[in-house]
Amino acid sequence: MADPVLGPVPDEYRETMERFGIDPIEEVADRLPDDPLIRRGIVFGHRDLGAVLDARDRGDEFAVMTGLMPSGPFHFGHKTVVEHLRLYQEMGAPVTLCVADVEAYLTRDVSLDEARQVAIEEYLPNYAALGIDLESADLYFQSTAGNDGQLLSKLFARHLTANQVAATYGDADPDTLVSALTEAADIVRPQTTRGEAVPTVVPVGIDQDPHIRLTRDAVARYRDAAYRKPASTYHRFMRGLRGGKMSSSDPASHVALSEPIESAKRKIDAAKTGGRASVAEHREKGANVEADVVFELLAFHLVDDDDELARIRREYAAGNLLSGELKALAKDRLETFLDAHRRRRGAVAERVERIAAERLPEVNI
Amino acid sequence: MADPVLGPVPDEYRETMERFGIDPIEEVADRLPDDPLIRRGIVFGHRDLGAVLDARDRGDEFAVMTGLMPSGPFHFGHKTVVEHLRLYQEMGAPVTLCVADVEAYLTRDVSLDEARQVAIEEYLPNYAALGIDLESADLYFQSTAGNDGQLLSKLFARHLTANQVAATYGDADPDTLVSALTEAADIVRPQTTRGEAVPTVVPVGIDQDPHIRLTRDAVARYRDAAYRKPASTYHRFMRGLRGGKMSSSDPASHVALSEPIESAKRKIDAAKTGGRASVAEHREKGANVEADVVFELLAFHLVDDDDELARIRREYAAGNLLSGELKALAKDRLETFLDAHRRRRGAVAERVERIAAERLPEVNI
Repeated sequence: MADPVLGPVPDEYRETMERFGIDPIEEVADRLPDDPLIRRGIVFGHRDLGAVLDARDRGDEFAVMTGLMPSGPFHFGHKTVVEHLRLYQEMGAPVTLCVADVEAYLTRDVSLDEARQVAIEEYLPNYAALGIDLESADLYFQSTAGNDGQLLSKLFARHLTANQVAATYGDADPDTLVSALTEAADIVRPQTTRGEAVPTVVPVGIDQDPHIRLTRDAVARYRDAAYRKPASTYHRFMRGLRGGKMSSSDPASHVALSEPIESAKRKIDAAKTGGRASVAEHREKGANVEADVVFELLAFHLVDDDDELARIRREYAAGNLLSGELKALAKDRLETFLDAHRRRRGAVAERVERIAAERLPEVNI
Repeated sequence: MADPVLGPVPDEYRETMERFGIDPIEEVADRLPDDPLIRRGIVFGHRDLGAVLDARDRGDEFAVMTGLMPSGPFHFGHKTVVEHLRLYQEMGAPVTLCVADVEAYLTRDVSLDEARQVAIEEYLPNYAALGIDLESADLYFQSTAGNDGQLLSKLFARHLTANQVAATYGDADPDTLVSALTEAADIVRPQTTRGEAVPTVVPVGIDQDPHIRLTRDAVARYRDAAYRKPASTYHRFMRGLRGGKMSSSDPASHVALSEPIESAKRKIDAAKTGGRASVAEHREKGANVEADVVFELLAFHLVDDDDELARIRREYAAGNLLSGELKALAKDRLETFLDAHRRRRGAVAERVERIAAERLPEVNI
């Protein structure tokens, strides 16, 4: 299961996989497209994906669903989520995309208007620029989920206990509970909007697995309709630029996709590397590639060609390539990517605004 | 505050009034219609009704809101709720009437379809037959509250704590919490549908005051719109026919308004009276009127004329009227009432069914 380019899946991922029944993606990889997410081990696990792939193979409908939390800047961590979603779009799955404005209101201390504005100005243009077809997608805001989702989320309350919610999320406060119920209905949405219980896959980071499990429990106990338990696949995230977690709320940990290039370059200069204490030691021992977040940035986001990436890794591990040289390469590629992405985003901006306006709420509260 | 016909407000009511700031209705009685509910002390308390009456006096709009739990038969306890609602309808308040089908689903272990059917076949015809104008009312089902109420109930979750819900309802389980949030949004509904924060009164039994208090707290903390705290007035319920609480789930405790007359008469025969152990003792000491639920049935529901009711009480208290004679009178009046009510209900049935169908959900879950 270890991938030579990115190194093995971290131990804490493995523990979660074993504890909660997430299987290695290798089991089904030969049924998936030849995609860097799979080849590089960025998507590493799945639960029940076989049922979705069986539907695809029979020529039956299958669906993909994801949500976005409109809070903070759209950074490279979010880019992986979008690419994971795009994988299924390219396989022919209709896309359901939920703007979690209600959850942002409940958990991020913003108004609904602020949450919607961040979604429209920051998140959706990046989704479109990264290749998600918002026009054909079932793009909706939680605040306009309408009777189906709003109601279903309430009905699920009969089938979950406070203990279960607390065990899953750490507390069962009203905002936590309503968020959990809302997400469960969001995940079921493709099965309600498409008129039948279509097999649905939810591409997530492993930190999102509690939502998946809670939804599966609610669906299993809900007897008023025969919904399927959602399938899921799991992606790794690159670490934050200083090590640790990449986070929207810690600017030093991430580069935003709308970040000015000079600021982005300074962050690369300050990033955690696997270089040794001296050039001599580096030449002798080679870099500690697995400790290097600049290499991760290249592998996750900036080098398309597998052979080139393997060569970079080899040279770096052998000590032929210095950390400063790796950073220079990363800054160069980053500049190229951000420039091109900015143009793509500019090209879709107006269309995204129109689509979002069409899907926006008429709410009188 | 004691009413000579019904006796004083029970001590536990007084304690709740003092603890939670419910004022005696006498304070505002001269601004209310001359109605048996007020004259007989059936409506005994209020909170903030002055603001509603001030709006009425200025010629401004004011509203009345109530909900019904579609579960079990519609009995004489429910009749008091409807008469309390009708009081405000007659004062000119537009009526908002919520069918709590979501709460029935969450707390009564029925399906939404069953809950709606009970509402349409059992509750709404009785509301109409008792004089509520459903055609002009904002009659809605919780399951179709639409974005406004469904969404608002979720947003309120940010402004309430699990402790507060548990302190109010005894637990903060998902079904309890979602019910509480849903009710809070229901109570605010007249302020969202009428385009401004119209002063709203909610006529309730004192057991419903926790909902009112929780809603007032949520509204006070919600800053995204300037809703008014709801006003409320409180009615007494007559006791169950055997003493204790009248309950939908205990047939011996109530007479349903659709009950066959023979069954109703048998329940009166078995009812708890204030008669003495022997006729001689009864003639000597007179009845214990306050212990007598048959007299309550007459006072709450079956004797329209105040003078006649006062005379019955006097004769009964003096021992001139025996319990058996009081029961005979009650059975006679009950038969007359149930017959007339059955005719009224038959006359409105078709119209009610049409109105309910118009307001019913198109939900795809």
